[in-house]
Amino acid sequence: MSTFGFVEYKDASPEVRAIYDDMATRKTDWINNFWKAIAHDPATLKRTWESLKVIMGPGAIDPLTKELIYVAVSVTNNCHYCIASHTASAFKKGMTPEMFKELQAVIGMANETNKMVTGYQVEIDEQFRPPLQ
Amino acid sequence: MSTFGFVEYKDASPEVRAIYDDMATRKTDWINNFWKAIAHDPATLKRTWESLKVIMGPGAIDPLTKELIYVAVSVTNNCHYCIASHTASAFKKGMTPEMFKELQAVIGMANETNKMVTGYQVEIDEQFRPPLQ
Amino acid sequence: MSTFGFVEYKDASPEVRAIYDDMATRKTDWINNFWKAIAHDPATLKRTWESLKVIMGPGAIDPLTKELIYVAVSVTNNCHYCIASHTASAFKKGMTPEMFKELQAVIGMANETNKMVTGYQVEIDEQFRPPLQ
Amino acid sequence: MSTFGFVEYKDASPEVRAIYDDMATRKTDWINNFWKAIAHDPATLKRTWESLKVIMGPGAIDPLTKELIYVAVSVTNNCHYCIASHTASAFKKGMTPEMFKELQAVIGMANETNKMVTGYQVEIDEQFRPPLQ
Amino acid sequence: MSTFGFVEYKDASPEVRAIYDDMATRKTDWINNFWKAIAHDPATLKRTWESLKVIMGPGAIDPLTKELIYVAVSVTNNCHYCIASHTASAFKKGMTPEMFKELQAVIGMANETNKMVTGYQVEIDEQFRPPLQ
Amino acid sequence: MSTFGFVEYKDASPEVRAIYDDMATRKTDWINNFWKAIAHDPATLKRTWESLKVIMGPGAIDPLTKELIYVAVSVTNNCHYCIASHTASAFKKGMTPEMFKELQAVIGMANETNKMVTGYQVEIDEQFRPPLQ
Repeated sequence: MSTFGFVEYKDASPEVRAIYDDMATRKTDWINNFWKAIAHDPATLKRTWESLKVIMGPGAIDPLTKELIYVAVSVTNNCHYCIASHTASAFKKGMTPEMFKELQAVIGMANETNKMVTGYQVEIDEQFRPPLQ
Repeated sequence: MSTFGFVEYKDASPEVRAIYDDMATRKTDWINNFWKAIAHDPATLKRTWESLKVIMGPGAIDPLTKELIYVAVSVTNNCHYCIASHTASAFKKGMTPEMFKELQAVIGMANETNKMVTGYQVEIDEQFRPPLQ
Repeated sequence: MSTFGFVEYKDASPEVRAIYDDMATRKTDWINNFWKAIAHDPATLKRTWESLKVIMGPGAIDPLTKELIYVAVSVTNNCHYCIASHTASAFKKGMTPEMFKELQAVIGMANETNKMVTGYQVEIDEQFRPPLQ
Repeated sequence: MSTFGFVEYKDASPEVRAIYDDMATRKTDWINNFWKAIAHDPATLKRTWESLKVIMGPGAIDPLTKELIYVAVSVTNNCHYCIASHTASAFKKGMTPEMFKELQAVIGMANETNKMVTGYQVEIDEQFRPPLQ
Repeated sequence: MSTFGFVEYKDASPEVRAIYDDMATRKTDWINNFWKAIAHDPATLKRTWESLKVIMGPGAIDPLTKELIYVAVSVTNNCHYCIASHTASAFKKGMTPEMFKELQAVIGMANETNKMVTGYQVEIDEQFRPPLQ
Repeated sequence: MSTFGFVEYKDASPEVRAIYDDMATRKTDWINNFWKAIAHDPATLKRTWESLKVIMGPGAIDPLTKELIYVAVSVTNNCHYCIASHTASAFKKGMTPEMFKELQAVIGMANETNKMVTGYQVEIDEQFRPPLQ
């Protein structure tokens, strides 16, 4: 369920259907709930999908690594939907169980030390100050 | 600065100095403020350093990718110290400016969609539900 | 359900019942679970309700706008109960579907740029520094 | 300062300069640090600016209200840069000191009750469950 | 500094001055910046101070423990002002350096396991489900 | 459920079983889902359990107070599993309903004032700056 329910393919406007078709040419063989929920706002659906295609596609960082980063953000934000969907997506792109376990360990460790450094009110070292390049 | 100030090498107990020496055998040529701040609690320093060595070391995920994940968590948590130190560390391990830019774009996108899916109260698709393996 | 269950009207002490009655004079025709959960702590129930009445009532910002702000905070905090209750409340106070969609887009955008500016470690412009008035 | 420093107008590529010029036709008489920081990534600069123009522009919700929502998200995320820039922006668009004060009170209250409802583990009322429209 | 600057005692209205006087009868011998910042909104100053006095005063939980809890929340929220002021306050109420160190270790650990349990998408055990009393 | 399902005692490797046995010598008479989920990664299970035993055990801060701090972090992070398990654990270690209520009030208040001080962009008082000891 979602605030306005889901826009299914058969009920979609041509504008929304075109985006669903574009998704189908990619690895997804069905449209997930997130897209069907925001399809009530076709402009947002289009903008979000087009940004996602560019940002999550191949580049200087490979798509699987991008999924690991996405999961790390989603876990830190405690977003259950995003954790579920991007963990599934990462497995589909080649994440192994060993990688999953290391990913979770890194996320946990980073969250721990983020708070320790904050709690101890540690000042940033001169060597770490930007600009870095 | 930090809550209790920093424990410098010359003032460190043998226990703390042994950990600083272990750090020095690795790529760091100076001890950063975080370690010098928590060195007031040698047991925590030791436990944290030993966990970090294992978790951030080579494994199924390579050390540079682990730094990218660490930065993603730190940005999402808004931890300035950690962003500064792990961004510096990622550059040192080979992150290029292009990778940095893509990393930030992924982090931004993930934070945006995390909130959109939450705001629309989207239910998790059956296909995404664990167990996944 | 909640930690101690719910305090129903018929079982409420006179002190709690007086607050429930005050709620009933307002737009709510039933007492929601949040109030019935914290009614186990009558002093907190009273303090919270009285603050809420003042803060969310008419003022320099109208009540509907205040609900939009409440939803924005709740989505950012990922509080499902609060998102559900304040989204319902906003619709009741006149939020249209178009407003809902724009609200979610603003929340998503703000969360994205919050992280980009943080990840790039951008220093605050002199022109933005307080005092602003 | 920022990770790569700032791209000033005089040093900008024609692509970046075109975006800066577009910004200048709007109410900003100078380019702020955020844009000059991400201008190292022209594609991201362009995408972000174009999304922002659409999302923060007039619609079913007026631009000042959108700024209040932006501030609410930024405070909840603890993003100092965004709080500073969007508070300044809100004042410029007509936020009065009274509105600022009510905004902060709503943000504070929402953050408080978000956590109380979570801490008491309160289940969502049937009446609040989506779909709502 | 703060959005509107600070309301100093000598410039305060009688209403604000009465609250400052009430603060002075307690352990604080000077008014801190938070109170002087929100004193621009006397109703909020009064409401916040009166809630704080009740909530942070002696009860089933002692005032020092309440400060430790306050610090834990503030570190998790990454609120530098609150960390600084409540850490100082906790030391004043008797927190020892040993307690500070254990507090930080617990905060770090809790943040780590919060994320691990979330990342592994662990379902709540029946034994932990409320109502608990 | 969890990403890989649960490792039950009867199916556990000797390494995992040894940790489960160590848990059983303590107050838990059954292994909770968190441990059974991360048992798919025995090294992480071992490291986490051993850290937890030390950190949450008796010290300068008593175990019940540590549970209160754990709950405060978990509520602030909005981690439902952790709230459920550590609230149950706190009750088991002696938290009374009155303590629970005060704990929630402190958590709520801290979250509120964390955001007010941030929204007003209040600068840290000189008196609060570290080093504090």
